[in-house]
Amino acid sequence: MRVADKAMRTIWLEPDGASVGIIDQTQLPFALRTVRLTSLAEAAHAIAAMQVRGAPLIGAAAAYGLALALKDDASDRGLDDSCRVLAATRPTAVNLQWALADMRQTLLPLPPARRVAAAFARAEAICEEDVATNRAIAGHGLPLIEAAWRRQGGAGAVEILTHCNAGWLAAVDWGTALAPIYLAHDQGIPLHVWVDETRPRNQGASLTAWELAQHGVPHTVIVDNAGGHLMQRGRVALCLVGSDRTTSAGDVANKIGTYLKALAAHDTGVPFYVALPSSSIDWSIEDGRDIPIEERDPAEVAEIAGALPDGTVARVRLLPAASAAANYGFDVTPARLVTALITERGVCAASRAGLLSLFPERQARRA
Amino acid sequence: MRVADKAMRTIWLEPDGASVGIIDQTQLPFALRTVRLTSLAEAAHAIAAMQVRGAPLIGAAAAYGLALALKDDASDRGLDDSCRVLAATRPTAVNLQWALADMRQTLLPLPPARRVAAAFARAEAICEEDVATNRAIAGHGLPLIEAAWRRQGGAGAVEILTHCNAGWLAAVDWGTALAPIYLAHDQGIPLHVWVDETRPRNQGASLTAWELAQHGVPHTVIVDNAGGHLMQRGRVALCLVGSDRTTSAGDVANKIGTYLKALAAHDTGVPFYVALPSSSIDWSIEDGRDIPIEERDPAEVAEIAGALPDGTVARVRLLPAASAAANYGFDVTPARLVTALITERGVCAASRAGLLSLFPERQARRA
Repeated sequence: MRVADKAMRTIWLEPDGASVGIIDQTQLPFALRTVRLTSLAEAAHAIAAMQVRGAPLIGAAAAYGLALALKDDASDRGLDDSCRVLAATRPTAVNLQWALADMRQTLLPLPPARRVAAAFARAEAICEEDVATNRAIAGHGLPLIEAAWRRQGGAGAVEILTHCNAGWLAAVDWGTALAPIYLAHDQGIPLHVWVDETRPRNQGASLTAWELAQHGVPHTVIVDNAGGHLMQRGRVALCLVGSDRTTSAGDVANKIGTYLKALAAHDTGVPFYVALPSSSIDWSIEDGRDIPIEERDPAEVAEIAGALPDGTVARVRLLPAASAAANYGFDVTPARLVTALITERGVCAASRAGLLSLFPERQARRA
Repeated sequence: MRVADKAMRTIWLEPDGASVGIIDQTQLPFALRTVRLTSLAEAAHAIAAMQVRGAPLIGAAAAYGLALALKDDASDRGLDDSCRVLAATRPTAVNLQWALADMRQTLLPLPPARRVAAAFARAEAICEEDVATNRAIAGHGLPLIEAAWRRQGGAGAVEILTHCNAGWLAAVDWGTALAPIYLAHDQGIPLHVWVDETRPRNQGASLTAWELAQHGVPHTVIVDNAGGHLMQRGRVALCLVGSDRTTSAGDVANKIGTYLKALAAHDTGVPFYVALPSSSIDWSIEDGRDIPIEERDPAEVAEIAGALPDGTVARVRLLPAASAAANYGFDVTPARLVTALITERGVCAASRAGLLSLFPERQARRA
């Protein structure tokens, strides 16, 4: 998507063909800083320090990290050691493990001398696959926004509420929930996005707002408490969020607070759409209540980072010294509250039947 | 309630009988600083600068402010001028106008020489009336907490979720939503309070958490996004919140985000109680959708105050420079989502019939 009127991705092969560029997302939204990765150690640091984050982007960064590692040691042992180093950077990131397994499977059969070139090629392919998936989600989501615009008689702007960051910064390009928004905006449909700030890590206020601002999409940041009120007063045409994990029955695990917005949408008759790549569907779980919810560091609730008046970024403590905090990463929105799922294969009902209509091969596997 | 094991109120007559003490709430939760008010100017500043806040406390502070003013000029003209100065400090605060009207009506018939003593006496009475109202709310709410404790077989702690600050810091003592919690705690019922941080002004994380910590009530601060998840997982026995304005049909205007918690409580079968003094019932409005919702300074969303590592309090900006914010102060929870209202006269259904059963004199007035 656009940054200061120039097309940009979150990760790219540098012109030298032997190093990899990334946006250092820890500096956003206060500074756009790019980093050049030249080694395994630098790639591993970028993932561990969350300079890159978001499931698809972590996978892409790990793939490129392995390519960088093989420049120094393309032996079988070098390949295995490097996979281990990268796998340990974010142990619970499914895409990270998936990308490393894919790379290993591609590279191990090759003679070491050919592995570096093959690794860069496969990493690039992984990136392109992510972009294609998200572009397909954009195409399938677009008609839902067009329909909302028609419902309001083509007047005004389509008001869309989103939660957290499911934009291009979490992927290689486009993103998931924001992909249809970018496409609709580029096609001239007037839009306005309500951006939930998304405490505790504030990915909405920092990343989603920054993305939308750079691409020129009108938006307003609100606290997480405000969306229900806006829906009650008819100020939201549709909600559009991402998903960290979707069950085979269409229950959606996503950033904490998503469930509350889905309840408000249901209570006020606002369509609630969830955009996701099929790679995030967990076919082994049907009931969202079986999804374990990660508890994270309470410091993310007790403290927050922001810019001081002089522009330097500082962390401030929000709680009294004697008070503890708890930090739940995700919640589960039951399928009954989801109007439809938007995948790279099309739009479907949030149900087992709906998902199987798009992914019939999963029916065969179960039988 | 207790602060460092000593009973404390938010406002008090100093031993000299001629000055008034307050807690400077702008310094909480990072420092407990008391301020001694000796003049009209100091009292007006305390209200305008929000050293005192919360509807009942603002009324009490204005009453004492008038008493301080009369020490310098107890003439009719002095009384009127002082009322004007105090009324302008928080123009939309209903209790402020009410307290000043009450004081003026009490004092104007008296000869100037008797007004100072009468003003201090009436201000003290206003404070005592607030304490009595809130103590009555505590007594009527207590059985609801006891019932929750019995439902769980008297085992563990009763888990209560609250939003914003409806505690003693917003009143003279006890508070409204927190009043039954303090009483239950003092009577030995084991409790644990989930405290919504309550963005944007974070009254939960700063004031409610501080109050509960000082009084020794176990509690944990969570982001506003987390309550729905906790209710889904059976971690909340009941919700207990305050109200800024309640309609004659039981719709509840309260801090933004209250509606989302009420939806989650309804969806998960958790009782949702609202505690309020009857002075905040607006008998002139039936439908909560007719309540105008205040839009506040977007800077409250874009920035937040907290303590730097060295203890100094700083404001940091959370948004990209190019992004705007919007700030809605309240939302309306429809009566259908409220399990019951807790008033100083007892507990009733959130409905016109329910309210009239406790306040039958309102029926007569309407007829």
